[in-house]
Amino acid sequence: MYIRTKKNIGEEEKNEILKFISANKLGTIIKEEEKYFKIGLVGNTEKVDLDILLSFAGVDEIVPIGKSYKFVSREFQPEDTIIDIKGKKIGGGHFLMMAGPCAVESRESIFKIAEAVKKYGAHVLRGGAFKPRTSPYDFQGLGEEGLKYMREAADKYDLLVVTEVMDSQDIPLVEKYADIFQVGARNMQNFSLLKALGSCRKPVLLKRGLSATIREFLMAAEYIVAYGNSNVILCERGIRTFETMTRNTVDINAIPLIKEKSHLPIMIDASHGTGRRSLVQPVTMAGVVAGADGAMVEVHENPECACSDGMQSLYFDGFEKLMKNLQKLLEFRKEIL
Amino acid sequence: MYIRTKKNIGEEEKNEILKFISANKLGTIIKEEEKYFKIGLVGNTEKVDLDILLSFAGVDEIVPIGKSYKFVSREFQPEDTIIDIKGKKIGGGHFLMMAGPCAVESRESIFKIAEAVKKYGAHVLRGGAFKPRTSPYDFQGLGEEGLKYMREAADKYDLLVVTEVMDSQDIPLVEKYADIFQVGARNMQNFSLLKALGSCRKPVLLKRGLSATIREFLMAAEYIVAYGNSNVILCERGIRTFETMTRNTVDINAIPLIKEKSHLPIMIDASHGTGRRSLVQPVTMAGVVAGADGAMVEVHENPECACSDGMQSLYFDGFEKLMKNLQKLLEFRKEIL
Amino acid sequence: MYIRTKKNIGEEEKNEILKFISANKLGTIIKEEEKYFKIGLVGNTEKVDLDILLSFAGVDEIVPIGKSYKFVSREFQPEDTIIDIKGKKIGGGHFLMMAGPCAVESRESIFKIAEAVKKYGAHVLRGGAFKPRTSPYDFQGLGEEGLKYMREAADKYDLLVVTEVMDSQDIPLVEKYADIFQVGARNMQNFSLLKALGSCRKPVLLKRGLSATIREFLMAAEYIVAYGNSNVILCERGIRTFETMTRNTVDINAIPLIKEKSHLPIMIDASHGTGRRSLVQPVTMAGVVAGADGAMVEVHENPECACSDGMQSLYFDGFEKLMKNLQKLLEFRKEIL
Amino acid sequence: MYIRTKKNIGEEEKNEILKFISANKLGTIIKEEEKYFKIGLVGNTEKVDLDILLSFAGVDEIVPIGKSYKFVSREFQPEDTIIDIKGKKIGGGHFLMMAGPCAVESRESIFKIAEAVKKYGAHVLRGGAFKPRTSPYDFQGLGEEGLKYMREAADKYDLLVVTEVMDSQDIPLVEKYADIFQVGARNMQNFSLLKALGSCRKPVLLKRGLSATIREFLMAAEYIVAYGNSNVILCERGIRTFETMTRNTVDINAIPLIKEKSHLPIMIDASHGTGRRSLVQPVTMAGVVAGADGAMVEVHENPECACSDGMQSLYFDGFEKLMKNLQKLLEFRKEIL
Repeated sequence: MYIRTKKNIGEEEKNEILKFISANKLGTIIKEEEKYFKIGLVGNTEKVDLDILLSFAGVDEIVPIGKSYKFVSREFQPEDTIIDIKGKKIGGGHFLMMAGPCAVESRESIFKIAEAVKKYGAHVLRGGAFKPRTSPYDFQGLGEEGLKYMREAADKYDLLVVTEVMDSQDIPLVEKYADIFQVGARNMQNFSLLKALGSCRKPVLLKRGLSATIREFLMAAEYIVAYGNSNVILCERGIRTFETMTRNTVDINAIPLIKEKSHLPIMIDASHGTGRRSLVQPVTMAGVVAGADGAMVEVHENPECACSDGMQSLYFDGFEKLMKNLQKLLEFRKEIL
Repeated sequence: MYIRTKKNIGEEEKNEILKFISANKLGTIIKEEEKYFKIGLVGNTEKVDLDILLSFAGVDEIVPIGKSYKFVSREFQPEDTIIDIKGKKIGGGHFLMMAGPCAVESRESIFKIAEAVKKYGAHVLRGGAFKPRTSPYDFQGLGEEGLKYMREAADKYDLLVVTEVMDSQDIPLVEKYADIFQVGARNMQNFSLLKALGSCRKPVLLKRGLSATIREFLMAAEYIVAYGNSNVILCERGIRTFETMTRNTVDINAIPLIKEKSHLPIMIDASHGTGRRSLVQPVTMAGVVAGADGAMVEVHENPECACSDGMQSLYFDGFEKLMKNLQKLLEFRKEIL
Repeated sequence: MYIRTKKNIGEEEKNEILKFISANKLGTIIKEEEKYFKIGLVGNTEKVDLDILLSFAGVDEIVPIGKSYKFVSREFQPEDTIIDIKGKKIGGGHFLMMAGPCAVESRESIFKIAEAVKKYGAHVLRGGAFKPRTSPYDFQGLGEEGLKYMREAADKYDLLVVTEVMDSQDIPLVEKYADIFQVGARNMQNFSLLKALGSCRKPVLLKRGLSATIREFLMAAEYIVAYGNSNVILCERGIRTFETMTRNTVDINAIPLIKEKSHLPIMIDASHGTGRRSLVQPVTMAGVVAGADGAMVEVHENPECACSDGMQSLYFDGFEKLMKNLQKLLEFRKEIL
Repeated sequence: MYIRTKKNIGEEEKNEILKFISANKLGTIIKEEEKYFKIGLVGNTEKVDLDILLSFAGVDEIVPIGKSYKFVSREFQPEDTIIDIKGKKIGGGHFLMMAGPCAVESRESIFKIAEAVKKYGAHVLRGGAFKPRTSPYDFQGLGEEGLKYMREAADKYDLLVVTEVMDSQDIPLVEKYADIFQVGARNMQNFSLLKALGSCRKPVLLKRGLSATIREFLMAAEYIVAYGNSNVILCERGIRTFETMTRNTVDINAIPLIKEKSHLPIMIDASHGTGRRSLVQPVTMAGVVAGADGAMVEVHENPECACSDGMQSLYFDGFEKLMKNLQKLLEFRKEIL
């Protein structure tokens, strides 16, 4: 449900509407259109008599949104969301490349990797400082130390930092160092975390849960948006299937379908999605030809020795090759009818 | 890996071992056996020269554990874990019945339900005060108010309280009112939450994730145990499959298999597992005949009007019937060869 | 859609109806009720003006069936189907036990097994002569030789024979030796085979496909019934899930749900469903307490040496124990409210 | 296991080897290499003393194949299989486009469609005459009549014919009209059908089963090859997942992975794989950029009125657009490093 205001509505008329909404304990999500506003209503509208609004001077129409995901839908916002992070953009034709190790392992290592991924064209340095591991006995990440190393390396090479936040308590710490919060697949329905990120202003990279449907994925994004942060980047990273020869199965259908349904940018992560180095390039390319707004890949200076996920990390030369092919593919993509 | 001490080991010899372990930055999980101790080593033992321990006076043997889930395995502890919560027990032949509404909806309602479930034999009152909902626009629970109502109702009718904790930040609040922490299916791999619950002393009811394997389920329990809390109750509540006529598919295989592999008690939740009232009794009975140590069912005084999950909640008379049948079945189960 | 005739309808009036149906190129499935008939219409009724039938003397009502599975539904036939095979019955309270090796391996072996399963109470000897194997290089069964051995062993020990038919071409051969045709999980949607079995008179044991939904399972049964053979026994044998510690996951929900939706008898096969000997008893018991009309288990005189599926076959003493427990459980089941 | 012969082996020496193999009741699959032969052994080699072969004049080496899929593996044949069907080729860089309606509906319709798909560049006309339908009450295809119409239309427009064969009994009939046999997803493990197709000479298009793993898919192809027909074209057509917004989920990982593991050509079918018209182009393009050797799409002159699968069929102009984009993409693909 959103309110479509009259064109050229005055400040006073707008405030009257907002006052009414707030008096009814509802929140708002406001989009400025050419000459009017869409004022989305957040919260339980069932007990509120919205028809009264139709008598307000500034109100043109009350528009229902048929979907359970409302503010992330194309119905609410037909045009692509473009997210601008310190001048680097994703969405609406802008492509963002994120690369780096699975986990930050040492200061030296992250600097080497940052230098390499920058050289071949990445915009964002990825790397985990807090690692969600199936076993409590596996390497859990360097913590704040890792965050510091990432920030320094990214600053040196003019990269942004994306890193996972695993718990609402860790948000202030991660926010200090990161440009983009990453929510991991296992936390896609950690609703406390999603709500808490809704009150942050930095963008959130939301990874699809291992067995989440597309609708659930969009609903998780809706949580962040409804709680106040509309800078959400979706990431298809493979779903769990019966297949055992690959780690997960990248759901390629999801990319063009989500672009149909939602205005949010969507990326592809073929490293986690396949779990095999040799598949990272073809599957990333597949995602991009199908419409992805960005890609994330794991790159390591010495994959054989990586603390985690070495099997799926690209060597520097593999990343160079991928970036060259992606450049050409992005050119080619502009010509597709 | 655990250390088997010599029989009748003295306090001094034991301390010498513990001091060595602690000096090497490892944690311990200690089980007292008839005349000796098993001292489980927690943490990364790879860089520690454990052979030195063999020269210690109190050490009999260093025993490797082959499984990735170590301290929850039958290898480490062959006998069933029995958890005693204010005199009510689960495991090792003790059966615990948990019942109540999906969500606490009002003071009046939870008192009515508590009275009824107590009358027919339940030991624990279940009910959500913080609800994990797919949509941000659905009822999210009464919060602390709901916790208070539950505690009062449970106290009046001599019941224990089990309720979900969704975030590590909420632990102190929930701990104030609940006897058992519940970790929901969507949070089964919320490792921050699992670690935080490891430092609590109250038991944890851990629900299996929607697409978690049995190994991942046991590993999640291992997190809680490895971080210090060995009072973990497992709960099979259905996994996601292609089936659309039921909400989830209860994995009946998991119950006898987990009892083979682990000493922890395991329950069945057929309300969430089937999503259909008519299936709650047959599937609960199936779980119990297959070896479950407890069961959880949703009961509501007026399921048609429930805020959530009404379709799967039993009426009071349905719960009465189930409890009578379960009593007989538990008697019968003792005779199975 | 079915026609409900008037009570005490005469032969002539009935023939008039049947003539009309046949003239419109539709088939029929006829159920005799106390004093009237239900005449089910098979085929595409869209282009037929059925309302004309309402003017026929013998027609009381034309009743739509809301489900896509029509003649297997409780809507068409509320009471349980009871199938009588040479005096041995399944359905409507009659329990049928099928046991035997995965594959017939030799004359000597099948005789030994037949003797043992008969001794402990089985009614039907199972065993494969044509084996559907994932690899072309695995043992494919003894073929007709195996069928002969089974028949002889079954005759000697007063058992029925159930065995798989893999292809419509093999029906005449298998029909010569078997009392019940088995359709394997991989062939559940081999529609040519289902249609061909529709023209047979011997009962068909239809196994649920590895990733079939309950609706698809019932639709597969509907094929056999719609093509003329209403003696269909359903068999839940486990579906494919992400679990790797068991071979498949027995869908225990399916048993009470199918009994709600359909009048056909349903069995449980815990040997294929779990793939682990230790789980066969608890899971079979779970199926029976949830309402199964029969059970199928693999039994072998020397499971370690079986050509296939040895890991899941019971030893003779395990089968003896299971049968004793099942007898008691069937007694107990009568008392459930 | 295969025998590598000496270089420039004489006819007599070769026959000596083949005689030995045949005397031991094994079959052969023979590949001619530059100056020698690889003679693959088909059947159970366990009881045969193959070492004797090492004393034969023409034998150079006995080479084990580590995989369960042997003759379809790159280990046995490193170079791509190229299948030539009346001058039209697939594999080894040759791209084959198959298009047409889900089912042949009338003579007029199939001629219209054939004309259009030919015009825009298709090589093969697809269409079902025997349709595998979940419900016995749905349109089952025109049968032989449909085959005739297809053949005529294909001949008029210089197209090949691919159509499904559902049962081993139907092979002679289908062979009369088709150039390529199609095995549907539900029949991927209909081993009787696979074996029967092994004795045919026309190529087989094998669709991946709805819940088949890649290994099982390759094993199904192995059946056809081991029984004598090495002209197998694989087809990824989507697997069953939890997703409900698409019909199936195209497993894009499978395409580059299968190309790594097997020398057989692999196609993508995005019509069945997605079930949504708007996704057919992006997902087909994704498959092609990831390495597919061919594609199959449904095209209909009036999708709204199609007997089946109308929602996923392209209009003629959609097909035209797809073909133009594919031409460019195939050019582009040659430049990928």
